[in-house]
Amino acid sequence: MSLTHSTSDETTAVTLLATVKRSVDDYLADYFDTQIALASQISPRYGQLWQATADLSIAGGKRLRPYMVVLAYVAFSESNEYESVLPAAAACELIHQGILMHDDIIDRDDVRYGTNNVSGQYMQTYHELEDSDRRHFANAAAMLGGDVLISESHRLLQQCGADRTTQLKVLDIFSTSVNHVVGGELIDVEAAFTETSTDHSLIVARYKTASYSYVGPLCIGAQLAGVDGKTLALIKRFGEAVGTAFQLKDDLLGTFGDETTTGKSTTTDLLEAKRTYLIEQFELIATTESKNEFHNYFGVHGSTDQEINRAKTILRASGAIEKVEQKIASYKQEALEALDNFNITSSARSQFELLINMSIDRVK
Amino acid sequence: MSLTHSTSDETTAVTLLATVKRSVDDYLADYFDTQIALASQISPRYGQLWQATADLSIAGGKRLRPYMVVLAYVAFSESNEYESVLPAAAACELIHQGILMHDDIIDRDDVRYGTNNVSGQYMQTYHELEDSDRRHFANAAAMLGGDVLISESHRLLQQCGADRTTQLKVLDIFSTSVNHVVGGELIDVEAAFTETSTDHSLIVARYKTASYSYVGPLCIGAQLAGVDGKTLALIKRFGEAVGTAFQLKDDLLGTFGDETTTGKSTTTDLLEAKRTYLIEQFELIATTESKNEFHNYFGVHGSTDQEINRAKTILRASGAIEKVEQKIASYKQEALEALDNFNITSSARSQFELLINMSIDRVK
Repeated sequence: MSLTHSTSDETTAVTLLATVKRSVDDYLADYFDTQIALASQISPRYGQLWQATADLSIAGGKRLRPYMVVLAYVAFSESNEYESVLPAAAACELIHQGILMHDDIIDRDDVRYGTNNVSGQYMQTYHELEDSDRRHFANAAAMLGGDVLISESHRLLQQCGADRTTQLKVLDIFSTSVNHVVGGELIDVEAAFTETSTDHSLIVARYKTASYSYVGPLCIGAQLAGVDGKTLALIKRFGEAVGTAFQLKDDLLGTFGDETTTGKSTTTDLLEAKRTYLIEQFELIATTESKNEFHNYFGVHGSTDQEINRAKTILRASGAIEKVEQKIASYKQEALEALDNFNITSSARSQFELLINMSIDRVK
Repeated sequence: MSLTHSTSDETTAVTLLATVKRSVDDYLADYFDTQIALASQISPRYGQLWQATADLSIAGGKRLRPYMVVLAYVAFSESNEYESVLPAAAACELIHQGILMHDDIIDRDDVRYGTNNVSGQYMQTYHELEDSDRRHFANAAAMLGGDVLISESHRLLQQCGADRTTQLKVLDIFSTSVNHVVGGELIDVEAAFTETSTDHSLIVARYKTASYSYVGPLCIGAQLAGVDGKTLALIKRFGEAVGTAFQLKDDLLGTFGDETTTGKSTTTDLLEAKRTYLIEQFELIATTESKNEFHNYFGVHGSTDQEINRAKTILRASGAIEKVEQKIASYKQEALEALDNFNITSSARSQFELLINMSIDRVK
């Protein structure tokens, strides 16, 4: 498995993403085949749970976390061979799938990647059960499926063939990111019915998104390439900045994006009163009159489309969007400053720049 | 940390259990202190989740799994120093606590070790929420708490200082046992509303109990002591036999035990129509008339105490109890045969014998 360098750095970067996706997809397809077979030996029903998990995993996901593992590994090892780190790349995808399965239970979602997720698949069976029992069992199955993925991600993580010291450092990075995403998720859920701190949205963005989606994969790839502690700290700073900016951008698109492009509703966050950085800034800078009117619609489930549009107009007029964009720009600046200190080739640098663009300068 | 050998082998074995419990309790107390502090830095609310988890973990648990890790390690390494394997012993306790937290969600239990479990603790807060939202959040918190314990157990498992090859073997044993307990749990839950195979109860006993509560800990301890593959296979056979017999005994006590001794209701399994080996044997050997009457009460939630007592009388008269006891005896025989082939001291052997007794010849 080797990358073909093209004359254009950007083409190389795009190629890397596509190539890694193919490699990880192949790796995961083999992995799930083995697991389904093993589980079916215990019971056909357990085989079914693994099949449902595999179906979901194969249905979607851009494999951005595995891509980041490889990107960092290739950049800092100066080797184009990345087969040895594929298990760690796949581990980052597997933990993501496990966390998503549990996230969907918390969000009461039966759909993911436009298809039935694991609980959604189980809701399609056992129609003879009462609704509440069927829901309870579907959630139990999805919880158990996520549990085994969390455990299995740790097993895959250790299959890279690195020395024991490196593997322990990688494990430490990975465990920390799992610890963070659980904390971020808890704070996010609890925010629906408790007072939040003024920096709530940035804490959630950092722990629920940046830590496990950016810092973890990038630092794991770099650690496997053998970087020193100083470089690792720079990569962590880079990952935190890009990952947090990604989330801020995501929240902006969640209200002001083009639904036909993003594929996501632009009313849900407002109806659910999600405490995004956008809303926090609005609360800080808007007039009392604007805030009073806004709160007639925000988090009010009966709000009409017209009222939600009015809420968006108030948000827009307040200047909160510009505040978010300024914050995103300052994170981008921070990421670029960290990047300036990476001791890597210009080709590798262009890949990190593409990562920034894909994360921040996007419309979906 | 060293064991004091007494003149009596049995005393040594009992002492080992007590000593290991103290060591693991100390280890976990330190561990939880650190985690609570780290989580509180992210958010006081995340600190609270770790505190709730620590409270539950400290409230109960006999630490039998850590004991088995140490027992096997001490027996096969012929060393009384077991401090190096404490992280793996603690990992086996931590995964158990994580699995229990999720098990309680599935069983709709808010109580464990006679105290509020994690969901139970969260149900005591946020009284202003509607009941269904409070339940949903309490379950989400317990699910997230279990998630991070599953991940953390893998981190602890790798802290034993063994060489890389040994650590990978230990990881493989541990991951397999997590995979098994998830499968066993799924089959057990699904059995409530599907046809079960004739060997259902033995499959559940093997995968939900024996694999992760006996085979895993014993094989991990032995692997850390450096045993060869042949010995490991013997230990696996021993663990499967004792662990499965443990579950069969548990099911017997669950219906015919002394509630004041076991602390468990002897009606729940019958009211919930639990498909135990006892019930499977009854279905095989009882007369049609007995079965017809039994099914008037079994799994019927309105059954009175008198009717449940009648169901027990029918079970007893069928000879099903003797069938279970014969099966337990044959597992005990299998365990003893495996034990005969362990190349260990007589003192170590007596500890394995005590484990058999504690697991099988017990009244609670």
